[in-house]
Amino acid sequence: MENMKQRRTIRKYQQKDISADLLNDLLETSFRASTVGNMQVYCVIVTRDAERKAKLAPAHFNQPMVQTAPVVLTFCIDLRRFSKWCRQRNAEPGYDNFEWFVTGAIDALLVAQTFCVAAEEKGLGICYLGTTTYNPQMIVEALELPELVFPITTVTVGWPAELPAQTDRLPLEAIVHEEVYHDYTAEDINRLYAHKESLPENRQFVQENNKETLAQVFTDVRYTKRDNEAMSKILWETMKKQGF
Amino acid sequence: MENMKQRRTIRKYQQKDISADLLNDLLETSFRASTVGNMQVYCVIVTRDAERKAKLAPAHFNQPMVQTAPVVLTFCIDLRRFSKWCRQRNAEPGYDNFEWFVTGAIDALLVAQTFCVAAEEKGLGICYLGTTTYNPQMIVEALELPELVFPITTVTVGWPAELPAQTDRLPLEAIVHEEVYHDYTAEDINRLYAHKESLPENRQFVQENNKETLAQVFTDVRYTKRDNEAMSKILWETMKKQGF
Repeated sequence: MENMKQRRTIRKYQQKDISADLLNDLLETSFRASTVGNMQVYCVIVTRDAERKAKLAPAHFNQPMVQTAPVVLTFCIDLRRFSKWCRQRNAEPGYDNFEWFVTGAIDALLVAQTFCVAAEEKGLGICYLGTTTYNPQMIVEALELPELVFPITTVTVGWPAELPAQTDRLPLEAIVHEEVYHDYTAEDINRLYAHKESLPENRQFVQENNKETLAQVFTDVRYTKRDNEAMSKILWETMKKQGF
Repeated sequence: MENMKQRRTIRKYQQKDISADLLNDLLETSFRASTVGNMQVYCVIVTRDAERKAKLAPAHFNQPMVQTAPVVLTFCIDLRRFSKWCRQRNAEPGYDNFEWFVTGAIDALLVAQTFCVAAEEKGLGICYLGTTTYNPQMIVEALELPELVFPITTVTVGWPAELPAQTDRLPLEAIVHEEVYHDYTAEDINRLYAHKESLPENRQFVQENNKETLAQVFTDVRYTKRDNEAMSKILWETMKKQGF
């Protein structure tokens, strides 16, 4: 557990491969994660080839990790394999809908995170790419994902070539609610965000971006309403296009 | 890693509490999981009270674990706290959309699975309840979840009172694709599902349900197209009702 407490995201990797044996061992371990009805409605696409990484990179806004990590893993919702099995066994599948899009996402994400915990235990470093759900249509194309398969998250993996400082987290009381949801008062919000707002790196973000508050860095620069709405539309359309 | 390989879902628990210190330590550890832009767009509702468990139970089709586990954790997408912070800091949040529903789900599920791995390392047993996304409206009510908060998964936790056999998993080649998605031929499907179909417990399911194939047990009994479509509608409507 100490490993999990001390973890940090790693974005710089040594030029050193991950052996097929180690990668497969980690993947096999991750497939022990809980899965709905033991249906395993997920798949993992392993990218090692430099050309394929170059194809994937734009979908991830060319974040350098995609091309510098020895391995890129795209974790996907997969109702295709299960549905094929059903049809081949004289059973009519009904998994091309929103419920199973979400259920497949849950399945795939439990596997992704189990993989990451196991990989970090072995000394590897990982970085999640949230861009996966921003440009899913580009990933569908780059990885040739057919109907009923959908990329939900991406993890770059490699041997660490950096040891960044741990990032801050909100206090426990900001996240945990006893019995029912206790809504936040204005005073709660001030107290819970005080530490985050006081950090030198965050004050610097505010200054560099010429903003009044840290929150404005998020709403006006990093994740704007306009971008969020455009991405929602693409995400929805790609979900439909993939047959859900 | 051996722990992760040997894990099994635990549905029967000792009548023994989980201390607040241990639970908080596990939760705090889980909050070290990767989170989009370090925004932590999730929350966790802890249910220990017997009356509250009784209220929650019907949402989970009265699966006994809800009432017999000492602790029930509902992991939620939470864009509420973050949006409140934004408004209080003169920033206009734009996170009430589909993109952030999915992003919040990713955040919450990485935390849930980190919690589970850590809990199992400490000797606790866990069970995921997929029913969370079947009846989200009932959970919203039971846990008094306001707008921009949405229950994505539930985990029951306790000290194990059973050691069930490990369930089967598909072979690695059924899940992992090199570079691009390699679609399955009819022969692939036969080969990949042969072991699962040969298992005595699965043959028994087929017989008990008076079906021809194991796949029909899934499509005709466990997860029918009709139920899936009804649940999709509820899931979608509840997402809208919660403001996404």
